[in-house]
Amino acid sequence: MYTLWIGNKNYSSWSLRAWLSLRALDIPFQEQLSPLNLGSSSYQKFKAFSPSGKVPCLIDGEQVVWDSLAIIEYVAEQYPKLLPQDKAARAWARCAMAEMHSGFMELRSRCPMNCALTGIEIEHTPALDHDIQRLDELLQQGLTQFGGVWLAGKDFGAVDAFFAPIALRAKSYSLKFSEATQQWMQRVLQHPNVQEWCQQGEQEDF
Amino acid sequence: MYTLWIGNKNYSSWSLRAWLSLRALDIPFQEQLSPLNLGSSSYQKFKAFSPSGKVPCLIDGEQVVWDSLAIIEYVAEQYPKLLPQDKAARAWARCAMAEMHSGFMELRSRCPMNCALTGIEIEHTPALDHDIQRLDELLQQGLTQFGGVWLAGKDFGAVDAFFAPIALRAKSYSLKFSEATQQWMQRVLQHPNVQEWCQQGEQEDF
Repeated sequence: MYTLWIGNKNYSSWSLRAWLSLRALDIPFQEQLSPLNLGSSSYQKFKAFSPSGKVPCLIDGEQVVWDSLAIIEYVAEQYPKLLPQDKAARAWARCAMAEMHSGFMELRSRCPMNCALTGIEIEHTPALDHDIQRLDELLQQGLTQFGGVWLAGKDFGAVDAFFAPIALRAKSYSLKFSEATQQWMQRVLQHPNVQEWCQQGEQEDF
Repeated sequence: MYTLWIGNKNYSSWSLRAWLSLRALDIPFQEQLSPLNLGSSSYQKFKAFSPSGKVPCLIDGEQVVWDSLAIIEYVAEQYPKLLPQDKAARAWARCAMAEMHSGFMELRSRCPMNCALTGIEIEHTPALDHDIQRLDELLQQGLTQFGGVWLAGKDFGAVDAFFAPIALRAKSYSLKFSEATQQWMQRVLQHPNVQEWCQQGEQEDF
């Protein structure tokens, strides 16, 4: 059985992405939570189990798989439905996930994920509005192009998991998106797995 | 045939990664170079062909594939040898590429790729030295664990392409690495495809 190392549920958006992906297909895994060192680097602490000193990190017997995107590709070799089965949808999902993985830096630094926060108003910079606009465009594309209520088709998959933290941030920081994107965000926030994660996050006292 | 949109050969390290990957397997493609707007954003300019407003971007008929990592996975579906054939080596390669894709920010901002630069001395910060140390550890692992002279085995593949810009930066900014890593860097710098890219870069006057 896989072991998935994660950080705090309240704060670790990359952990959430991997966790939701495994949960989406009911893939059995053992969860190992290692709290972040808030206010200082967690590198040395996480280095004990993750070569990059970051979470999430998946252990599969002898195989160590660090980084959320590598975890998705690794798991998808055994569980192909983690990615869309349609070739064009799969290509789009990978582009969208990769863009999230390396981008939207202003939104990520100005609006850190915090499951417990709701309705905060923040100052908007041009760079933040640029990130929001591009995210909205991207999410709308996923929702219109593949004929489903989730981002790349009819089923919640890795690409929905990859953008789920954006739905949480929109709720926390009162970020405005188009109607179609907001409806997808509502579905994400009401998803049983997302609700379970957030409820456990809100109970954390570390 | 694929079309690959790239930025300046002198400066666009992400373009180099995709270009070297296609070249590694002699995959036919048409190259389209769109110079970066140096000193200001290229977003609007690149948006004409790339949804993220960034390079590289691969066009395959109707299919648009943006982001270097998504390009690798897309192309590897048709050309599996772009990734290691051994499962453990493939998992490692994906982890390493993903870590490069989202990390090493201090090195990337302090030591921008510039094919024409050699032997510059820069001030080292703890964050830069941390990036160099982790890169060295990662590259050494790839060189010792899979029994080849390239990072994940006997053949130059996508993971070598992903770290090739680090070899160019080490040359430009006099960065010190372990002996094994330096030998790999020498092989990268002497690789015909890397030399061709750099020669063309040095001739750019835009």
